[in-house]
Amino acid sequence: MVSEHQFITLVLYGEKFLGIIIVAMAETGENSVGVIKTETIRVVEPEKPLELECGKKLAPIDVAYETYGELNEAGDNAVLICHALSGNAHVAGLNSPDDRKPGWWDPMVGPGKGIDTNKYFVICSNFLGGCSGTTGPSSINPETGKPYGLDFPIITIADMVRVQKLLLDKLGIKKLLTVIGGSIGGMQVLQWAIEYPEIVKSAIAIATTTHLGAQSIAFDAVGRNAILGDVNFADGQYGSEKGPDRGLAIARMIGHITYLSEQGMREKFGRKLRGAESYSYDFNSEFAVETYLDYQGQSFVERFDANSYLYITKAADYFDLKKEYGSLAKAFANTRSRFLIVSFTSDWLYTPAQSEAIVDALVANDKDVSFYSIESPYGHDSFLLEPKTLGLFISGFLEATHAKRQKGPVQREKIKDKRYEIRTRVDYELIESLIEPSAAVLDVGCGDGELLANLASDKNIKGKGIELAQELVLACVNRGLSIIQHDIERGLGSCADKSFDVVILSQTLQTVKNPERVFTELLRVGKKVIVSFPNFAHWRCRAQLFLGGKAPVTKQLPFGWHDSPNIHFLSLKDFDRFCEKLGVKVEKRIPLVKTRRRAVRFAPNLFAEQVIYVTSKD
Amino acid sequence: MVSEHQFITLVLYGEKFLGIIIVAMAETGENSVGVIKTETIRVVEPEKPLELECGKKLAPIDVAYETYGELNEAGDNAVLICHALSGNAHVAGLNSPDDRKPGWWDPMVGPGKGIDTNKYFVICSNFLGGCSGTTGPSSINPETGKPYGLDFPIITIADMVRVQKLLLDKLGIKKLLTVIGGSIGGMQVLQWAIEYPEIVKSAIAIATTTHLGAQSIAFDAVGRNAILGDVNFADGQYGSEKGPDRGLAIARMIGHITYLSEQGMREKFGRKLRGAESYSYDFNSEFAVETYLDYQGQSFVERFDANSYLYITKAADYFDLKKEYGSLAKAFANTRSRFLIVSFTSDWLYTPAQSEAIVDALVANDKDVSFYSIESPYGHDSFLLEPKTLGLFISGFLEATHAKRQKGPVQREKIKDKRYEIRTRVDYELIESLIEPSAAVLDVGCGDGELLANLASDKNIKGKGIELAQELVLACVNRGLSIIQHDIERGLGSCADKSFDVVILSQTLQTVKNPERVFTELLRVGKKVIVSFPNFAHWRCRAQLFLGGKAPVTKQLPFGWHDSPNIHFLSLKDFDRFCEKLGVKVEKRIPLVKTRRRAVRFAPNLFAEQVIYVTSKD
Repeated sequence: MVSEHQFITLVLYGEKFLGIIIVAMAETGENSVGVIKTETIRVVEPEKPLELECGKKLAPIDVAYETYGELNEAGDNAVLICHALSGNAHVAGLNSPDDRKPGWWDPMVGPGKGIDTNKYFVICSNFLGGCSGTTGPSSINPETGKPYGLDFPIITIADMVRVQKLLLDKLGIKKLLTVIGGSIGGMQVLQWAIEYPEIVKSAIAIATTTHLGAQSIAFDAVGRNAILGDVNFADGQYGSEKGPDRGLAIARMIGHITYLSEQGMREKFGRKLRGAESYSYDFNSEFAVETYLDYQGQSFVERFDANSYLYITKAADYFDLKKEYGSLAKAFANTRSRFLIVSFTSDWLYTPAQSEAIVDALVANDKDVSFYSIESPYGHDSFLLEPKTLGLFISGFLEATHAKRQKGPVQREKIKDKRYEIRTRVDYELIESLIEPSAAVLDVGCGDGELLANLASDKNIKGKGIELAQELVLACVNRGLSIIQHDIERGLGSCADKSFDVVILSQTLQTVKNPERVFTELLRVGKKVIVSFPNFAHWRCRAQLFLGGKAPVTKQLPFGWHDSPNIHFLSLKDFDRFCEKLGVKVEKRIPLVKTRRRAVRFAPNLFAEQVIYVTSKD
Repeated sequence: MVSEHQFITLVLYGEKFLGIIIVAMAETGENSVGVIKTETIRVVEPEKPLELECGKKLAPIDVAYETYGELNEAGDNAVLICHALSGNAHVAGLNSPDDRKPGWWDPMVGPGKGIDTNKYFVICSNFLGGCSGTTGPSSINPETGKPYGLDFPIITIADMVRVQKLLLDKLGIKKLLTVIGGSIGGMQVLQWAIEYPEIVKSAIAIATTTHLGAQSIAFDAVGRNAILGDVNFADGQYGSEKGPDRGLAIARMIGHITYLSEQGMREKFGRKLRGAESYSYDFNSEFAVETYLDYQGQSFVERFDANSYLYITKAADYFDLKKEYGSLAKAFANTRSRFLIVSFTSDWLYTPAQSEAIVDALVANDKDVSFYSIESPYGHDSFLLEPKTLGLFISGFLEATHAKRQKGPVQREKIKDKRYEIRTRVDYELIESLIEPSAAVLDVGCGDGELLANLASDKNIKGKGIELAQELVLACVNRGLSIIQHDIERGLGSCADKSFDVVILSQTLQTVKNPERVFTELLRVGKKVIVSFPNFAHWRCRAQLFLGGKAPVTKQLPFGWHDSPNIHFLSLKDFDRFCEKLGVKVEKRIPLVKTRRRAVRFAPNLFAEQVIYVTSKD
């Protein structure tokens, strides 16, 4: 299947030969949902209007939707997809065999894909205010017999979600395995989880935010200005005649720049000229990026309604969970879903930091949340253009949520991480023995989640993991763990004091830049902190430096002086003094050698290869 | 004086009371250049047209300009300021006593300011194609008797510079102490240095680039689209009648978003509503950022010409030194100026990376260049909004350039940097003794430049320094050194192989993340590399670990295990083996103790506190 992205690139570089190629590529294949018709259903009857957030009433309301796959007998495999600004109900497959393009998220939705239509029953509807079948400003106003135009009431994300709920009621869907969406779709996901906690088992919010910042509002405002100021706008009553095409194209161009990243544009267009070596010295579009934007603007005008653009961007601008609920933490207080939050590193419209704010609020509420920021150059559009990586997270999360059970250990050979190898070798059993049943446990640098998974199955603990690498985070997601990509050096601002019974920092202290800050922060959030590290004063280390006059290399410190991830070197004595200085209580100190599973009793600072401390601070 | 930035903020929040305040604030004070009239002069006569880069000819050309201060007898104190997109000749002071606002860079230009009009003779002219007195598209086309409009030829940055040169000729200015400018003004600075190397003694290019990237071109293109598509544009022949105000306002709004930073907008506006607690549920501007943009757009329309906007942004889009000269390195090959390149951390329009590309090209040409990226939240506009910090760099650089002499040592107590203190204490004299007269020297981590300054005065070396901290870089600028802010871990891609006789890495190797990569890179660019570091196998260290069982703390390694900037620990033996492994020749090894200025002979790996290596690799 060809993505919109690829499609446009192709169009740009060879319009004439394209008809055939596209048709060939868009054919329904084995992994396509095939040919699907968009259905329309009335969810609000004229006599029973829906009260909107703005206070006005709206009726009737029709909703356009598509479904894929089958609802199972238990009715627990339904996945609701929420679309973004320019999307519609047509997510996957073709609407007719002649279609040149498949649905907007075809690479993600279909048999065997990230959202596997062999396993799940998938629903997507065009949202309220849209222009692809659902009631919106281009619908006929029953009071005038003409299109609403600007007489359409201002709608909000919550209004969109309530209309989606009415659709589900009509379709007889009582619970959702997941609600998923990117961008404005992700806003609807958050609203769903907040408004219908009993229905939404899990929520996957991608490249989204709880509120637009000033910069994003500014871009939206300029786009709306361009439409509202277009002479053909006619106060929104342009009807089927010539509309504010110039203004809408400008708005789309601005939007499109914000969907890409600087890096992505540089790599794709750079300063390439279209069809020329030298400048034309006039005001025609000549840079490749200019003609690309011209195309984006023009094609958008052909398929989208300017009034809908105004209403949808306004709904996005108005979305502000903090304003609505007093604080983000309060907004999520009553949610009961598992959450997967995904952002993209180069997304500067709805940034990773904005996703992290969602994660923070959920963590502050002690919710089951996982988070990862996928490395991608495609900016905000990554949620459409990274189906492979994103699909791994989505399918893993969906499966773990649906199965309700811990999965077996991930395949060990897949994980290549020196630190991880050292970690698993040494102290899991002992650390496990130190933890009480049903404890709330935070494992900082949890690797592939083996310890947390074992603790969950053996001791029924409530675990949370922190990791950095994609493969490790993904492994944890696959195990059904709550796993957050986070750099511990940045602190744990969102975690309340003493919110965990135990915090584990295994073989990591010596690798962080600021051990004091990290350790102090862990002691703040944990009633107990279990720390393990290699003992730099082991006799082999001492001998190597004292007699050999060189930086020690041992089994527990296996790196050369110049290529070690360890950037601090400490002994039991050093750590004892460190704890003393910080006023930390050492509850247990378990010096270890590799070959035995019990503590070294004699001269531990000399004979222990590594050590486990159990510490606490009031 | 009130900056445009402050002014607008004030206007936003209290229009009615403002008249009085502004007038009071804009009064000519002690540090103002006072009341200045913009002069106009004909630099191209009708009968002798100027040939432009596009191939067309243009005549007549008039130039609007202002000057401040006095040209000295030697004629060597002239500073040419080049303005940016919306600027003009009116840099500082007031044009009339009633003016509400001073010139656009008043905080930087005046008696005792960054560009001190007591010392320097300052000139600024409105550039070709502008709309503030210099010939541009709103000037009368002598062929038609009407304004040029779109009949004005497409102009380039080089055309602007050539017209400025004609102005200097008219004014009898034969050499420039400096050409300085930010943004599009910075492009003119680069063009000046390239085109008139014999005239330009130094060049200060601020927040600029050698070419716009795809994203910046895209923003410009959308702005032009908005103007060109405005019904009132009338193919540019709107004359004095109603012009494309809507389109120009949209273009300005887009531009303005790119001049600010996300952080800056968040801090200034956030999601504040203007004059209301709750949403208005209509399409009027209600967020503070919306009304701010409305104001920006509207006030720009009142003072700027839409055609000029088209021509200037096109000139910026066309500016591409690489395209013009084959490569950036070639572009700067014949320059003879000293360069100061300054960027701002939050500038996402012309990014620090784009400034670094200029620096790289100059370094590759072995030019005298200094660079610093100022930490600021104000985005691209920082070049107008950070007069204090920027002024320190400019005044220091100007003074050092004008004085042609090394300044004395900077006041020691001002520099607070532990590493720096250690460094100066130990090995300067010895390192100096190892360096041949007139050598080309790169000092990596050069601190405040003391060693380089001493080497320059004692041995006439040609030095370059690399540092990170602002106060250290500024100290080097004040000494007249070539100093580049750069993280050595990123390599020295721009330096040719063996382009330095000696590279110095003093007391730094143990603090870098990847010593092997750093050392290898230094050996690539230097014929010799002098490395010094503390000896971890000194007997005190050995004893502390062996007998005491704790991480060593000594005079040369004065930090605790947890708060040390040293993240690698090595001995002479370790470094010997390291060199062996890398195939590096150790030419000299000078083990040292603090109290003596000569080498330790007996058991150096045991008795040396630190060591200096002279190494090389073919």
